[in-house]
Amino acid sequence: MRMYDIILKKRNGGTLTKEEIACFIDGYVDGSIPDYQASALCMAIFFRGMTDEETAALTDCMARSGDMLDLSRFGDRTVDKHSTGGVGDKTTLIVAPIVASLGGKVAKMSGRGLGHTGGTVDKLEAIPGMKVTMEREDFLRQVEAVGVAVIGQSGNLTPADKKLYALRDVTATVDSIPLITSSIMSKKLAAGSKNIVLDVKAGSGAFMKTPDDARILARNMVAIGKACGRNMAALITDMSRPLGEAVGNTLEVIEAAQVLRGESKGDLYDVCVALATEMTMLFAGVSHAEAEKQVVGAIESGAAYARMKEWIAAQGGDPAWLERAKTGDGAAEAVPVLSPADGYITAMDTEAIGAAAVILGAGREKKEDAIDYSAGIIVGKKTGDAVRKGQTIACLYTNDPAAAEPAAQRYLDALTIGAEPPEKTDLIFDIIR
Amino acid sequence: MRMYDIILKKRNGGTLTKEEIACFIDGYVDGSIPDYQASALCMAIFFRGMTDEETAALTDCMARSGDMLDLSRFGDRTVDKHSTGGVGDKTTLIVAPIVASLGGKVAKMSGRGLGHTGGTVDKLEAIPGMKVTMEREDFLRQVEAVGVAVIGQSGNLTPADKKLYALRDVTATVDSIPLITSSIMSKKLAAGSKNIVLDVKAGSGAFMKTPDDARILARNMVAIGKACGRNMAALITDMSRPLGEAVGNTLEVIEAAQVLRGESKGDLYDVCVALATEMTMLFAGVSHAEAEKQVVGAIESGAAYARMKEWIAAQGGDPAWLERAKTGDGAAEAVPVLSPADGYITAMDTEAIGAAAVILGAGREKKEDAIDYSAGIIVGKKTGDAVRKGQTIACLYTNDPAAAEPAAQRYLDALTIGAEPPEKTDLIFDIIR
Repeated sequence: MRMYDIILKKRNGGTLTKEEIACFIDGYVDGSIPDYQASALCMAIFFRGMTDEETAALTDCMARSGDMLDLSRFGDRTVDKHSTGGVGDKTTLIVAPIVASLGGKVAKMSGRGLGHTGGTVDKLEAIPGMKVTMEREDFLRQVEAVGVAVIGQSGNLTPADKKLYALRDVTATVDSIPLITSSIMSKKLAAGSKNIVLDVKAGSGAFMKTPDDARILARNMVAIGKACGRNMAALITDMSRPLGEAVGNTLEVIEAAQVLRGESKGDLYDVCVALATEMTMLFAGVSHAEAEKQVVGAIESGAAYARMKEWIAAQGGDPAWLERAKTGDGAAEAVPVLSPADGYITAMDTEAIGAAAVILGAGREKKEDAIDYSAGIIVGKKTGDAVRKGQTIACLYTNDPAAAEPAAQRYLDALTIGAEPPEKTDLIFDIIR
Repeated sequence: MRMYDIILKKRNGGTLTKEEIACFIDGYVDGSIPDYQASALCMAIFFRGMTDEETAALTDCMARSGDMLDLSRFGDRTVDKHSTGGVGDKTTLIVAPIVASLGGKVAKMSGRGLGHTGGTVDKLEAIPGMKVTMEREDFLRQVEAVGVAVIGQSGNLTPADKKLYALRDVTATVDSIPLITSSIMSKKLAAGSKNIVLDVKAGSGAFMKTPDDARILARNMVAIGKACGRNMAALITDMSRPLGEAVGNTLEVIEAAQVLRGESKGDLYDVCVALATEMTMLFAGVSHAEAEKQVVGAIESGAAYARMKEWIAAQGGDPAWLERAKTGDGAAEAVPVLSPADGYITAMDTEAIGAAAVILGAGREKKEDAIDYSAGIIVGKKTGDAVRKGQTIACLYTNDPAAAEPAAQRYLDALTIGAEPPEKTDLIFDIIR
């Protein structure tokens, strides 16, 4: 079996066999297949696509290319959540303790933020003392005891994905549905959970710009996950505006605590309840109504918030900090952004808002960049809200005096203000099960 | 300008600017653009194609990537011929002395054979004493004195094409019209002739399997050559059977001499007259009728044959050998191939016949392989001919006793014999000017 023939077959619209896909992935990981053949194949896949069977085989090969986390000791109660990434997306901090308090087992590896999207690991590190690396056995013991442990990606998980993603990133072959699917799902399969809920974001702050594109990706991922023996569900949720109000690590942890304390009931609350409900349906095997009742109950009883504090303590963090932390803590500057006009916010370029937060120090341009955990944005007014000229519509937090001005400009440039209110749009576009 | 953006633009169906194409070629040649980005772009070009303007810019950049042969001392009388490659294609040996005898200046660099297609340089080396390497100034002086010099590719001509072709060859991106066009035409441009005639082969022994595909490639090459300031014409000729009777180096030189002596007037003669006529029209600026009259006259008067001997002598070869050489010289074995049935040859897999010649020692599997110049095949019966069971339909020549049997089998497998004669097909499908 020669890589040349595999490229030619896909280029000509053929369907690759499991053996051909394994030949590609195994050879690419062991270095016998060079980058220039792998990139040619990725481009052919971009144009020709892959069947569900091909994508499942690719996902499976990539998942098996390195370590596979063994969560069998938890039976079928393991549950994972994956978001395709957005701005202000702190849902993991909220749904993980909710489902843990309901008996789910969340053994989660998360990423760091890059560019306009944040990462859960960075948000956790904003909590004083919180550790995001752990020995494998300690990690599993914490899942057993607390129901939740979230750490950075560790060990030799999916080396095929690491190598292939780095290549796709520089060869304009990232945005191919089967390649995105196999990249995300291989990591989820290797991470070992039986039940997986995906939060596929759609809109100006997301990778998928329209709900239709997000739906195609979500259907594909759900199909591939099921084909690989996992219980799956996916939500398509709005990312045409930031989720919740906080963008930036400390700010987002504080907002997550507010939701778990029942103090905040906006779009973030709704998305988290919907995600936690799907997760509970899968791991507990209960109806939607029953799962939702349990989820809302866990928030209202304080059980979920208590579980969040236990989780923080288990990973070395200070749960008392969560009680006393206030918006703006640690930021030397708090700069209001004023509306330049009367009217309504009719659109937000959410990616640009994420970029404004990066300017303030909340995120990274490059992997090596340091983060200012306390930097970020409180988004006061969002799409659909009425604004008056001179009114404070957001507040920027930073420790870099030179950052406020360009960040404010970037923020204002991201807004469209019109005379008429925009049409209302959905927060949750679809649920795919 | 980033290579990533160039790949993305082409992938999304955009048209690359001259600057973007120059950035790619210059960066690829100097090593700053890696193979894996170049192969991704080639695959995107395979799917998206290129406009004539893009192909012309690519061709021009590649031509300028190394040395450009300066033939300006010969004014507008320089004339080159390029064949896309076939089996039994010895036309250069015939048309070059014809047009030289008519005042054309043929300063030609040719290739060696690989796989089922032969190369002019190997055929020339079958002539005792013939040298195919020469200092640049000696080469030009010979063109001045004799009107023709043919050597192997020398100097640093089109390094971009060398590097890119080697990459395309292992990434399944060879058969893309704009990439084929730029590869062939960049070499022709760098080789410096003002007038260029292409012989684009179509059929089972050619790269292009149908006249329609060959026509598309020919039109593209003619357009690009004209856009780059050359006078162009292209013939689309049949390669669904070997051209002439001889396949193999010495055998082909002998057949070429037979045509120039007026002893052979079959398909090979017809294609050579047509090619030389187009070449003469271009460099002499005469009508088709006038050019054809001159070409036929050069053969009938013996001027072309005399010029072939002068050419051989000028490159150190023995012109007397040409007079005395006979079919089968130098081959220890001459093995007849017998028809297995009565009927008509209805089709020939010409590529397989080329492969049979390689088995006999006439060609190379790999670049490093040695050649047996005297090995080869005389194709007695071709498509359309009636055959009787047991009749000799071809003769194999070799010095490898173990080769005859498998070569004969390969040869027979390449033939389709039916009860009815096949429809007659054209020898010259089209002329594109």
